[in-house]
Amino acid sequence: MTSGAAAVPGWVLGVDVGGSGSRVALAPVRDSSATGSPDSGHGGMRVLHGSRVGIASRGSSIPEVVDALLDRAAAEWPGEWASVAAIAVGATGAFTLIDDPHAVVRAIAARRPGAVAALATDAVTAHLGALAGSAGAVVAVGTGSVALGTDLGSVWRRVDGWGHLLGDRGAGSWIGREGLEAAMRQFDGVSTDGGALLAAAVESFGAPETWPSQLYTRNDRAGVLGSFAGRVDALAGEGDPAAVRIMTDAGREVARTLVAALDPRLPRVASAVGGVFAAPAASTPDPGAAATAHLGAPSAASIPQPAPAAPGAGAASRGATGAFTEAFAAAVREAHPPIELRPPAGTPLDGAIRLARLLVSPTPPSGHPEHLWLALPAL
Amino acid sequence: MTSGAAAVPGWVLGVDVGGSGSRVALAPVRDSSATGSPDSGHGGMRVLHGSRVGIASRGSSIPEVVDALLDRAAAEWPGEWASVAAIAVGATGAFTLIDDPHAVVRAIAARRPGAVAALATDAVTAHLGALAGSAGAVVAVGTGSVALGTDLGSVWRRVDGWGHLLGDRGAGSWIGREGLEAAMRQFDGVSTDGGALLAAAVESFGAPETWPSQLYTRNDRAGVLGSFAGRVDALAGEGDPAAVRIMTDAGREVARTLVAALDPRLPRVASAVGGVFAAPAASTPDPGAAATAHLGAPSAASIPQPAPAAPGAGAASRGATGAFTEAFAAAVREAHPPIELRPPAGTPLDGAIRLARLLVSPTPPSGHPEHLWLALPAL
Repeated sequence: MTSGAAAVPGWVLGVDVGGSGSRVALAPVRDSSATGSPDSGHGGMRVLHGSRVGIASRGSSIPEVVDALLDRAAAEWPGEWASVAAIAVGATGAFTLIDDPHAVVRAIAARRPGAVAALATDAVTAHLGALAGSAGAVVAVGTGSVALGTDLGSVWRRVDGWGHLLGDRGAGSWIGREGLEAAMRQFDGVSTDGGALLAAAVESFGAPETWPSQLYTRNDRAGVLGSFAGRVDALAGEGDPAAVRIMTDAGREVARTLVAALDPRLPRVASAVGGVFAAPAASTPDPGAAATAHLGAPSAASIPQPAPAAPGAGAASRGATGAFTEAFAAAVREAHPPIELRPPAGTPLDGAIRLARLLVSPTPPSGHPEHLWLALPAL
Repeated sequence: MTSGAAAVPGWVLGVDVGGSGSRVALAPVRDSSATGSPDSGHGGMRVLHGSRVGIASRGSSIPEVVDALLDRAAAEWPGEWASVAAIAVGATGAFTLIDDPHAVVRAIAARRPGAVAALATDAVTAHLGALAGSAGAVVAVGTGSVALGTDLGSVWRRVDGWGHLLGDRGAGSWIGREGLEAAMRQFDGVSTDGGALLAAAVESFGAPETWPSQLYTRNDRAGVLGSFAGRVDALAGEGDPAAVRIMTDAGREVARTLVAALDPRLPRVASAVGGVFAAPAASTPDPGAAATAHLGAPSAASIPQPAPAAPGAGAASRGATGAFTEAFAAAVREAHPPIELRPPAGTPLDGAIRLARLLVSPTPPSGHPEHLWLALPAL
């Protein structure tokens, strides 16, 4: 049972823990995909789904969610479990909401004696998934927005991810808040271009007088705000000027966040993940519903990810009709020196599998005190 | 003990319940002030202070706070208590956070058999204090911002007061949020003019990485945001461009709120109350501390009020050096038809006393389902 991790061909587990759900994937240590691009989809992986993470009065339920997923993995895949060489977990709030990430990652490693383990923020697994291990910057946009520029070595530059009151600029919660504020201005008679937003908000939440009690009594206010982002996006798709302005501002904000994460020591390579980049505004029969599902996810890394785009398709081009994606792409194009914007190669779950494989590779990554914690035998 | 309320000369009680504290005042039924302007200060009143209002999982503690204040009043003023003819309470959240205001006002009246009672939102008592019973509009700005345009009869126009996620445009929480967002932009490297705001925020809250956990774990987030407003105001007083922009925007927002409350059926008369209108920016030895005390109060109506201004002194002129007051006054001056902006005649506590006197006057006010609830013998 104490099989040397790197020496024996076996299996790795990747875990993605987010605010809307969690997943564990099983994959071989050696990437068997035929293409030269490892982790290019879920083809080689088996996946189980688990519960979403919660936040108690003090700290996150990440350890409990991971434990439950590993219990399920051990029960579901008993043969492979015995030869799991590495477990890598990407989790929202791993830095800000866990007191002792080192203790958590050690506990994860202890679940499979002999295995090595990593705990990472969701920004790290999003990065590893989208850029497939290349150095550069990745912005992940859902209810929140966070960018990470890293070479997984000496450079780690995080931008935003500060939550709906301090930042998350351009994210779902930001868009929803802007939309509801504009609706309230219309309701209050201090502006005249928020009529469509007000009508949409009344349809979603009822009479404006009831919105405060619906919102301020909730613990997931960012999620409630984010649930309106899809309506704003849909109205922008219909050409409503106030909604177009909000979505355009949002796209620019996210671009600024991404560009700021490109530390000068990094190659000018970037990618962007999150449903808002894939939501085709106005061109689907019910763009509102589709966009809501994308934008309303409580955590950036837990957004349903689009299937990997065909090579050559820019991230922005997949939602080309949207004010958000147009503004985002235009702002990224304005950056100097120029930035190569790549379509995401994979999801954060792909990134977790990649991280697990790196752990048992000849060149495992170093840890980082704010992004990545390791439990390796040698340490 | 069932003395006819209006028939017998006696006493009235006014109560002001706010997020930072509460007060009960005792005054004669007949205004004995020498001037022609009733309620022109605390000269004729005796005042006791009580605890601030809290919000439990379901509803406000207004009834408990009022009960405790009336207990103290009965104990402190036993002789006068026996001939109290009317009790009027102005309370933050009276509409949005109390399920059955009618039951609450009946319970208040029952405390003094024979007395009549009124429960009002703090916007009503702020209005009655500032405009001394005249028809017009009053905006009250503290952590939140709400305007009420009313003639206390058929016209009741409320604007804003929607809280820090939906509105409270230009209020302390709004200013603080804008300031902290600008500080985070600077920290993130996406803007370059937030340096002074970032330095001030670090001085107030420590390292930016710790702000989310300081803020999102709190139940009084609006108050935490508002606690930074004084620093923004102070920096604006020193000429910091980013801070000046925020305070200028805030002043304009509050002016828009006030103007929107001036229903066409009302005379073009208005007043503005709240510490931000009195805070002398940058001209005091420690403007930050002074402004924080003013702007950081959790409730509009509970802000320490300035002493009534001398006749002829405009509300805006009392903080004439501030970007906020300048922008506010300029925006009000631009309104058409012109608006007569009066200095506040009194505080919300003065307004509560005025309301109590109105209850036993020959022409008591009618109630209103969202602003004013009465317990009169005839009803």
